[in-house]
Amino acid sequence: MAKAPTVEDVARAAGVSRQTVSNVLNSPGIVRGPTRERVQRAIAELGYRPHAAARQLRTRRSSTIGVRLDPYAGGVSGVVLDRFVHALTERASERGMRVLLYAARTPAEEIDRMGDLVDGGEIDAIVLTGTSHEDTRTTWLQARDVPFVSFGRPWRADDVDVPAHSWADVDGAAGTRAATRHLLEHAGPRIAFLGWPEGSGTGDDRARGWHEAMSHAGASGPRWHTEESVGLARALVGAALAADPALDAIVCVSDALAIGAHLAATALGRPELPVVGFDNTPAAEALGISSVEQLPEQVAAGVLDLLMGPTGSVVLRRDPEEEGAYVLVEPRLVVR
Amino acid sequence: MAKAPTVEDVARAAGVSRQTVSNVLNSPGIVRGPTRERVQRAIAELGYRPHAAARQLRTRRSSTIGVRLDPYAGGVSGVVLDRFVHALTERASERGMRVLLYAARTPAEEIDRMGDLVDGGEIDAIVLTGTSHEDTRTTWLQARDVPFVSFGRPWRADDVDVPAHSWADVDGAAGTRAATRHLLEHAGPRIAFLGWPEGSGTGDDRARGWHEAMSHAGASGPRWHTEESVGLARALVGAALAADPALDAIVCVSDALAIGAHLAATALGRPELPVVGFDNTPAAEALGISSVEQLPEQVAAGVLDLLMGPTGSVVLRRDPEEEGAYVLVEPRLVVR
Repeated sequence: MAKAPTVEDVARAAGVSRQTVSNVLNSPGIVRGPTRERVQRAIAELGYRPHAAARQLRTRRSSTIGVRLDPYAGGVSGVVLDRFVHALTERASERGMRVLLYAARTPAEEIDRMGDLVDGGEIDAIVLTGTSHEDTRTTWLQARDVPFVSFGRPWRADDVDVPAHSWADVDGAAGTRAATRHLLEHAGPRIAFLGWPEGSGTGDDRARGWHEAMSHAGASGPRWHTEESVGLARALVGAALAADPALDAIVCVSDALAIGAHLAATALGRPELPVVGFDNTPAAEALGISSVEQLPEQVAAGVLDLLMGPTGSVVLRRDPEEEGAYVLVEPRLVVR
Repeated sequence: MAKAPTVEDVARAAGVSRQTVSNVLNSPGIVRGPTRERVQRAIAELGYRPHAAARQLRTRRSSTIGVRLDPYAGGVSGVVLDRFVHALTERASERGMRVLLYAARTPAEEIDRMGDLVDGGEIDAIVLTGTSHEDTRTTWLQARDVPFVSFGRPWRADDVDVPAHSWADVDGAAGTRAATRHLLEHAGPRIAFLGWPEGSGTGDDRARGWHEAMSHAGASGPRWHTEESVGLARALVGAALAADPALDAIVCVSDALAIGAHLAATALGRPELPVVGFDNTPAAEALGISSVEQLPEQVAAGVLDLLMGPTGSVVLRRDPEEEGAYVLVEPRLVVR
């Protein structure tokens, strides 16, 4: 590479010693005004920049946030996490922070990788994705006192009142509540919910929003379950819709299930049956299906606010009083 | 953070000086056998790891590759680049390299960001995405002598014979050629091509594969153009198919256009009309549309081979004789 200017180059240009340049960089207050200005002028003229590794050794800060990137798994909704990483990279860059990606296939492997990066001083903080109840990674991060925020809440009863750790997440129930209210107003009272099998925090949360809006309106409708699969959703909704043609609309836990429901309705001659998905993916957009948009850009902004404080300072916040804060992003219904 | 063991801790545990520990780490040959073993035992027992920044200062290598991540733009095929970044992260990790993301909205801004990262010693190499003819970024990288490989070729006449720089790309023409051959065999001789407006390297390359396979078979079919939009493709194919119902199949430059073509055919009562897209996105999969798969994992492996040599060494290859090499990945037709 073309040689970058060194401290020696600056010292020679300013006619001072190497130590004086170092003092101007690290303790400008101890250098006489005219000398300091001469050195600063030489720094500007030569375009000298202290080497990141040297700066890092002095400050013990890398200004870098680590994020795990999983192997590509495909799937209609895979795009949400990628969109979050895009937004995190942009927002972090605006705050002078970098995003370093690492790969890991299991929580144990992720802990090993995080250990390497933390021990090597390569990252200051971690953004976890895909948290679960009793997550071994959060236990490890807390034991090692590594600053972290998760995209996704721990899914315990007291996540909001006494959060186990800082997290940012999307208010899934608010999203399906808004979708159900919209359909109650524009389609009719008999609205089904097509969800995942019970027991997933995210899926149960989204089912709750539908249930609350229906109860509040005194309406009722069937609740169906299936795995995340366009084909399974299509088969299930095809059979259910043939048996119960009075249905007014379907709220779905994901865009993949919404696509299956839409294809089933179309095959039964009802392409206009209102169906709402979740994640507002390119696939739903391509088919003209309404969907709840997660706003991953706001989640990324929330994650950085929790890590760094809202002031835009790059000093990572390690105030114990502040731990366990959270950001819950209200999603947006995109009607098509 | 929990305090990591230092060189001093190792020296104390082994009963040697700090300098001896440093010698064992950097020049083990000059330390007597028993002493060396005692120090190495202490290093293992304490779990001591040299700080990355210190190692980096010694070697002037960061073992890090920079990649620009654009703002999320949506679109059916946006997933391809994300899939490439996933694969690059995994493969780089296997080779002891890290992937650092940066954001930039224009080529000029990208050059600024690359300059910061290179000057700061934060990256050893760049992986460019979305190259164009007379790309200011490649000119800058070559002038600064920064190792780089692009995902995407420079799109000049002699990219393969005398490449302007190292690149890895997908052989788009081979993909549409395979798709067209498959349809000639299984659907019939009258096959249309639905492409982008002429003048894009990628789009013209994919059109060429269809044209070559058709000419070779003595077959012919219409060639249509439209911008990347499901709705525009649907309108165009709807009108064309109504006017020319004898068509046997449609090869498309992208999954978005294939989805539009499929929806138009379905609306005309021909849901079984064979349509092939490009990129094998989740959206095409959800609709059961055949597609040409780019295999971004192979592109990522090719990029790393070009940057580092196929040996798996983490030493970046800077042999001028080797510059301007390329990897052209043959895509795979996924029939649904």
